[in-house]
Amino acid sequence: MAAHFSLRGVPIVIAVDRGLRKSLSAQIYDAFRARIARREMRPGQIVPSTRELARDLDISRLPILTAYAQLLAEGYFEARIGSGTFVARSLDPKSFLPRPGPRDRDNSFDLPSKPRVISARASALPPYVRSLPAEGVGPFQVGQPDLSAFPLNVWSRLVARRSRNMRADEFLYGDPMGFVVLREAIATYLRTSRLVKCEADQIMIVSGSQQALYVTARVLLDPEATVWVEEPGYWLVRKVLKVAGCRTVPVPVDAEGLDVRAGVRLSPKARAAFVVPSHQFPLGVTMSAGRRFQLLDWAHKAGSWVIEDDYDSEYRSGGMPISSLQGLDTESRVIYIGTFSKVLFPSLRVGYIVIPPDLVGRFATVRQSMDLCPSASNQAVLADFIRQGHFIRHVRRMRKIYAERREVLAREIDRESGKLCTIVGAEAGMHLTVLIHAKIRDQEIAAKAAEKKLWLWPLSPTYDDVAPQQGFILGFGNTRSAEIPGAVRVLKELLSRS
Amino acid sequence: MAAHFSLRGVPIVIAVDRGLRKSLSAQIYDAFRARIARREMRPGQIVPSTRELARDLDISRLPILTAYAQLLAEGYFEARIGSGTFVARSLDPKSFLPRPGPRDRDNSFDLPSKPRVISARASALPPYVRSLPAEGVGPFQVGQPDLSAFPLNVWSRLVARRSRNMRADEFLYGDPMGFVVLREAIATYLRTSRLVKCEADQIMIVSGSQQALYVTARVLLDPEATVWVEEPGYWLVRKVLKVAGCRTVPVPVDAEGLDVRAGVRLSPKARAAFVVPSHQFPLGVTMSAGRRFQLLDWAHKAGSWVIEDDYDSEYRSGGMPISSLQGLDTESRVIYIGTFSKVLFPSLRVGYIVIPPDLVGRFATVRQSMDLCPSASNQAVLADFIRQGHFIRHVRRMRKIYAERREVLAREIDRESGKLCTIVGAEAGMHLTVLIHAKIRDQEIAAKAAEKKLWLWPLSPTYDDVAPQQGFILGFGNTRSAEIPGAVRVLKELLSRS
Repeated sequence: MAAHFSLRGVPIVIAVDRGLRKSLSAQIYDAFRARIARREMRPGQIVPSTRELARDLDISRLPILTAYAQLLAEGYFEARIGSGTFVARSLDPKSFLPRPGPRDRDNSFDLPSKPRVISARASALPPYVRSLPAEGVGPFQVGQPDLSAFPLNVWSRLVARRSRNMRADEFLYGDPMGFVVLREAIATYLRTSRLVKCEADQIMIVSGSQQALYVTARVLLDPEATVWVEEPGYWLVRKVLKVAGCRTVPVPVDAEGLDVRAGVRLSPKARAAFVVPSHQFPLGVTMSAGRRFQLLDWAHKAGSWVIEDDYDSEYRSGGMPISSLQGLDTESRVIYIGTFSKVLFPSLRVGYIVIPPDLVGRFATVRQSMDLCPSASNQAVLADFIRQGHFIRHVRRMRKIYAERREVLAREIDRESGKLCTIVGAEAGMHLTVLIHAKIRDQEIAAKAAEKKLWLWPLSPTYDDVAPQQGFILGFGNTRSAEIPGAVRVLKELLSRS
Repeated sequence: MAAHFSLRGVPIVIAVDRGLRKSLSAQIYDAFRARIARREMRPGQIVPSTRELARDLDISRLPILTAYAQLLAEGYFEARIGSGTFVARSLDPKSFLPRPGPRDRDNSFDLPSKPRVISARASALPPYVRSLPAEGVGPFQVGQPDLSAFPLNVWSRLVARRSRNMRADEFLYGDPMGFVVLREAIATYLRTSRLVKCEADQIMIVSGSQQALYVTARVLLDPEATVWVEEPGYWLVRKVLKVAGCRTVPVPVDAEGLDVRAGVRLSPKARAAFVVPSHQFPLGVTMSAGRRFQLLDWAHKAGSWVIEDDYDSEYRSGGMPISSLQGLDTESRVIYIGTFSKVLFPSLRVGYIVIPPDLVGRFATVRQSMDLCPSASNQAVLADFIRQGHFIRHVRRMRKIYAERREVLAREIDRESGKLCTIVGAEAGMHLTVLIHAKIRDQEIAAKAAEKKLWLWPLSPTYDDVAPQQGFILGFGNTRSAEIPGAVRVLKELLSRS
């Protein structure tokens, strides 16, 4: 409703015709009345001033004043001193429609009674429903960083400065690869901290891991292509591959990461493998050096692609970050994907792809067909944020905070429910996973927990398997240390009651 | 290079092992030397302070100080008082590598000598090459609004205010449909000014027309689906459909818009028609009422979809904007697409889709698989900009400015080259098109014009036809009235010399 009030000066499509026998004022009166009746104008919406309308219709103000006076007198319009004229807020359009025909219902669409033909792949996907965990904020939310520690004042200052000093070319369409300065900053960071082999011209700025995965799938894979995915694994990878029409082969993950030999047994000629070697989702395993070389060896021999998703390895406790799989590859078979969603904040929507040099032009052309180029504003601000050292300072600060929470969470779970479960993946990132030994249904418990504002992500849906491991993925990015003991006790109660 | 200087404090991946016989300082010395040689660290890049490195490696500073002293003495590092220690800028890595192996080349990738297997559709597309017109700014650029008239001070103020007052939920992942407040503002605008039948929950925020077209094609069309496209038409529509694997059927456009009868003759069962009825690109025709009803009638009977791209109809001179095709549809067969790229500025990357109510969930799920959700910052600022009335004020101001330029351009062309050409589409938008009667090659002339900083878009590539009409699409969005006569004279000279 509030939105309507503010849409001051929107031109109204009303036709007047001097050739008609009906007077101009009657035409205007009828037109507004009909538009209100059809709900094309809504109660509370501002109407143009008589002066504006006279200009738009290129007629004198007199017939407009006459029409407005009548609409005011009859209660269609209401005037508020100093604010203007509005469609009356008290109005119920149904009440003054003589005989509402089928076109005049509240929703003026004729909704079809049965599903209509759309693409087979879109039909096969369940329609989007906003999930409960996505709405709530509370203990154990997965994928949400602690925003209270984010240097918002620094960020705001950079945003404000950039918006005052935009160069003319920053208003125009950009390169589908993204801003050069940001790409250079990312390349330096990746070479130095992640041992990624790259130059700035191999880096494409995208809106996050999701777009990175999507573009990569589109460039590399035909429909019906067979692809290894981790079992258990990240559900949005499977969704991307489903949308692309690929066949996914779930390959088990053990304590050393993806079981490459199992993959070769299941599907030796797969076109690609999608892996998270630094901190697997959801199990949190780091792929061993042996498995890394096995995987690259397979990719080289099979002529296949490895997509390395490195979404949160900045936050590893103890020692240096794990170096990338991409850096070990000698035949540029690895596409390396990263994001700032976890390390800064999700709504930023900036991630990147490190593309093998011979494929840069192909990635760019596919990306251009999807959304032309990334938005200018966030790229410029982020480049400043990195180049001025705020990024690294923030990572260092958060690494400590998350390490502490991780420790508290693991200790509390151990103490409260140590016999019931095993903790895995507590070396890095913003979540750990508990495997439950007892016979429970994790999805049912998660639903009950949501009623208590505890956001447990059930583990079983991350498996394709018909008899999946039960457990929970527990985020601590946005869960303070002080909240953890209480939240773990609620979890324990839920477990013991089931 | 500048980027390197600023990447202060980036953690360096260096492994030290107390178990080795080699001293810690020798391990550190060797590690830096190797990383510089492999170009993982670049001349001019800052190195961590000894204190930072000691903390990262969890060792004492002493061996680090020893190693740094040696690296400084041997010229690998250089110290700058008050700034820190850097990889020496004078360094040529090749010069000190004893025997550069294949792994140690400048670009450490083994580039394959022949193309590698990627998806068939990506292979079929020409690799992206940044076009000359996209780089230059000058007379007749197409698709670029006049930014000097944009109320940048207002925009900056809204950006700064928003960035200071971000609510916690604005940092998190958003709804794949976009911000509710922006969707409400757009719905009110479209109902009032374009006679679009819609509620806010049918509106999806996307990054512009391109993403709107892409998402729509993915939801509605299977590979191999037959689709009507306008002939001549917008090349990026054809690209989207090619990427989606569809078969395009070019349907001629005449003075009344798309020739629906020709379409029915060519492909009666086409699954969709992509049209720009308000201001066709490139011919600028407005589709007649008769053709609109014919098109809807065909779609209803064939069970096909109509995609209405309304990218610039805000700028129509004389009278009211043309009402939308979507508003005439009684069976919700029309998907309506719009963008703020032309009416505000291209790098904003905000557009929208008005989705038939029964398909909203499908669009949302496909969009989520592509890039989760739109970026928060621009949506919030744009919502403020619209709700506070700046949007409409800007449109009114620009409508006058563009009307004047359009008039000057048409008049000058008429005077200078009236016999050589016909002007079409000079009623709206930010471009008009000249059809050249003489036998010329528009692409050759455009290449010559670019040397003179005149950005002519040749007309012939907008046709699929083997014998296309020759001509030029002349943008005046970013061409001031005073520049127009001179630019037209240059165009005339180019034409007369060919």
